[in-house]
Amino acid sequence: MSKYWSKVTKSLLPYVPGEQPKDKKYIKLNTNESPYPPSPRVLEAIKNEANEDLRLYPNPECNELRTVIAKYYNLQEEEVFVGNGSDELLAFSFQTFFDPGRTILFPDITYSFYPVYCQLFGIDYNTVTLDDDFNVPIDKFFMENGGVVISNPNAPTAKYMPLKDIKAIVDFNKNSVVIVDEAYIDFGGESAIKLIKDYPNLLVIQTLSKSRSLAGLRIALALGNKELIKGLNMVKNSFNSYTVDRLALTGAIEAFRDEEYFHETRQKIIFTRERTTESLKKIGFTVTDSKANFVFISHPRIKADIIFRRLREKGILVRYFEKHRIDNFLRVSIGTDNEMEAFIGALNEILSENGL
Amino acid sequence: MSKYWSKVTKSLLPYVPGEQPKDKKYIKLNTNESPYPPSPRVLEAIKNEANEDLRLYPNPECNELRTVIAKYYNLQEEEVFVGNGSDELLAFSFQTFFDPGRTILFPDITYSFYPVYCQLFGIDYNTVTLDDDFNVPIDKFFMENGGVVISNPNAPTAKYMPLKDIKAIVDFNKNSVVIVDEAYIDFGGESAIKLIKDYPNLLVIQTLSKSRSLAGLRIALALGNKELIKGLNMVKNSFNSYTVDRLALTGAIEAFRDEEYFHETRQKIIFTRERTTESLKKIGFTVTDSKANFVFISHPRIKADIIFRRLREKGILVRYFEKHRIDNFLRVSIGTDNEMEAFIGALNEILSENGL
Repeated sequence: MSKYWSKVTKSLLPYVPGEQPKDKKYIKLNTNESPYPPSPRVLEAIKNEANEDLRLYPNPECNELRTVIAKYYNLQEEEVFVGNGSDELLAFSFQTFFDPGRTILFPDITYSFYPVYCQLFGIDYNTVTLDDDFNVPIDKFFMENGGVVISNPNAPTAKYMPLKDIKAIVDFNKNSVVIVDEAYIDFGGESAIKLIKDYPNLLVIQTLSKSRSLAGLRIALALGNKELIKGLNMVKNSFNSYTVDRLALTGAIEAFRDEEYFHETRQKIIFTRERTTESLKKIGFTVTDSKANFVFISHPRIKADIIFRRLREKGILVRYFEKHRIDNFLRVSIGTDNEMEAFIGALNEILSENGL
Repeated sequence: MSKYWSKVTKSLLPYVPGEQPKDKKYIKLNTNESPYPPSPRVLEAIKNEANEDLRLYPNPECNELRTVIAKYYNLQEEEVFVGNGSDELLAFSFQTFFDPGRTILFPDITYSFYPVYCQLFGIDYNTVTLDDDFNVPIDKFFMENGGVVISNPNAPTAKYMPLKDIKAIVDFNKNSVVIVDEAYIDFGGESAIKLIKDYPNLLVIQTLSKSRSLAGLRIALALGNKELIKGLNMVKNSFNSYTVDRLALTGAIEAFRDEEYFHETRQKIIFTRERTTESLKKIGFTVTDSKANFVFISHPRIKADIIFRRLREKGILVRYFEKHRIDNFLRVSIGTDNEMEAFIGALNEILSENGL
């Protein structure tokens, strides 16, 4: 710890992203990336944009992309904000809508970046304990608070909360902002976007990193009432006027235009998820009901960290969280059918190594 | 103002970037972009990187780019941090090294984003008044403070402070971090990078947006003692693990590799700046001594805002700041020789319109 660090820096326990190893080629099921490449139209558009105009700043308002997204979701451009991945949008949102001294609420088991933002911005939080099946007890959000954050489907549990429950939470909390983090919504859930017209306190965050195969491009969107979006712009323009580069803007526009490719690849992932779930259950795993591009699994006889390490040795990366209540679970991203067959094969080997 | 905004959001007066108009084609001398395209090798590298790997997250540590930069500047990789433009690096740096309650210092006339960061992070600041010729009175920095920020060459004055003065400030302030913002250093100044080995309290920030013609790609670097860089990583990883996308990483690497193109284009800009300065003086303008890719000019008889508006009507954009002490100046980016001839021609017309 350096004497030159600010007090807040000294207090931080940063988020740790899933590993991106370079020592050998792995089957990478640890960071919820899409196993399919981006749309060929996206790659083509980016290549065309790699031209002399890169000497110029991007459009700081991202107008063209925001227009395309607004049209796609039947919103107005003023209800759309775009940024450098949903982590950046979450960071801006915590700072824009939550105040030190007003306690915010989120589930005890959820995206582990939320408490990190709270540390960074000095925001107090309480966690709502999920039930034993990782369901969200929605009545626990029916109390005075300074804001609510819900990941739906939730990570890493993969569980989806029906839209009527989201609506009940947003409806009760009219005096605070409810952020619904929909990073995984395109894999079978129903988005809360349709509630935006009725609820000025609802902010929906989505990303192009998962269902649109563009984790490497850093693009996400926040959708909500224009007053919320205006607030986000205040904070963003006090931090960095240009967080989305020219190539990312162009690629994102084309990703929204190529609807066919989007639907085709996400359907493939959903199909593989269902197949994988069946196979996992057959060999004795507990699998939560997933509406995401990953599954959350546990075995009654072999500890998750043992399976995690053994899979790694066999060249398969999954995610293990050494955390209370979920330290016997693994989060496994859905790969291609071939990758998931290799994964099931490796699990079968591990089971027999353990005499099962 | 919305009831959903946090207290800090309600207090913000965001930075306003130079306009990026779309109504017609302008000669754009208002945002200090390079008039020259990026190196052809950079564009080629980006095109090659626009491939299926965009489905994968970028390397959050940016190791390859950091190795290239470290080698270029004869530093260690642990002394290099990269981010999404120097605005992001400045924001991270203010948060990492400055504390509420410990007053930081920067010049009264400088990059107008600095006070905005202070608002955003609740940091107190005092400004040091530049002398009438916009020189920095360095002894004013020889006092107790919570940090120092110096833009060198300074913006928008274009004036350069010799390295011995920077060294004196860094040397006196061993208990606080001195940030030297070198966005424009490649146009004739001497970088403070060589002081890093001796001063653990020095952070140097540079960007690829100006001298490397990559404003559209969003890449900048912070260089300093490894403890400072470690602090920056703490904050960044509590905000957004991946702020630099795959294409930007690749483009930036190639920009550092193509040294020849870099030297050729920046020399051209320096040459055009000197020619432009001479022409401006000939027609009666006051021009500060510039070591940047822009000039800061004033006319004794015609008000700057009048020239600004008339140039705009003639299709030439420059930057006018309606601010105390500099409200009779214009900041003019250096374009190509042809663009600067058109600019001088337009000024001549404006002079004769005003009977001069």
